[in-house]
Amino acid sequence: MRMGEGVEWGLHCCLALAWLEDEAPIPTGRLAALFNLPPVYLKKRLQDLVRAGILASVPGVKGGFRLARAPERITLLDVVTAIEGRDEAFRCNEIRQRGAGAEEPEGTFAKPCGVVIAMRRAELAWRRELAAQTLADLMREAAPSAPGRTRRYYARLTG
Amino acid sequence: MRMGEGVEWGLHCCLALAWLEDEAPIPTGRLAALFNLPPVYLKKRLQDLVRAGILASVPGVKGGFRLARAPERITLLDVVTAIEGRDEAFRCNEIRQRGAGAEEPEGTFAKPCGVVIAMRRAELAWRRELAAQTLADLMREAAPSAPGRTRRYYARLTG
Repeated sequence: MRMGEGVEWGLHCCLALAWLEDEAPIPTGRLAALFNLPPVYLKKRLQDLVRAGILASVPGVKGGFRLARAPERITLLDVVTAIEGRDEAFRCNEIRQRGAGAEEPEGTFAKPCGVVIAMRRAELAWRRELAAQTLADLMREAAPSAPGRTRRYYARLTG
Repeated sequence: MRMGEGVEWGLHCCLALAWLEDEAPIPTGRLAALFNLPPVYLKKRLQDLVRAGILASVPGVKGGFRLARAPERITLLDVVTAIEGRDEAFRCNEIRQRGAGAEEPEGTFAKPCGVVIAMRRAELAWRRELAAQTLADLMREAAPSAPGRTRRYYARLTG
């Protein structure tokens, strides 16, 4: 089970956009250069975040991306869901109703299956924990030098 | 992010092996027929469970698989880890140290990154919940008809 690297990209870009608020909107190319990411693929992930209402996209030559809402109102779950989708990691194929149980009449099996309930309980705990953490928390827990460092790196790219 | 279907296979096979304790060892072909699964792929997953000490493999013509320990001592986390491995779903590529930050001296960045800490916290909640649920819990929460049904299906395959 592996999460796409887009989640790391998305979270770090949100952090950078929070710290570079005064420079917004920031074009994809510069965000990509900040982290040495492939601009075309990064843009797809940024657009996922726009669709989810996490980022706003400003069109035009001086356009780019900025946070669409306050860091307190962006949870890690928002970012993960925007990029990875809402599907559960564990998907049930109802194998218990196949094979030897296939010819049973409808209603033979409790719905939903206990295995699914148990696996879903664990995924809910994961989502709950992601929902309890915001971009503002990440900013608060970052090293005190992190915002200034991000601004210094950005200045190099633009200067 | 998606978990392999092997986890569903593994959990249902463990449940079936618990209910078919008196018939053990049970050959791969019959477990596969019980759920209409591809025997060759199922065998690989069963061997994962043997390596993890969850199942025992009995060699020979009358051989097959049985639970290696009591259902109370098999957690969902044991089964998930045996089949999916121990790697975390979120993997950090340290993109913050690439791009504009690449030429910084060592030690510039707090280790580990706050994004990883936050994502790891959520995965720990998921693992903790999986570790808190055992095969015995699944058996207890199953429909009262489930054990008898499994034995009836199995009798059809052998009869």
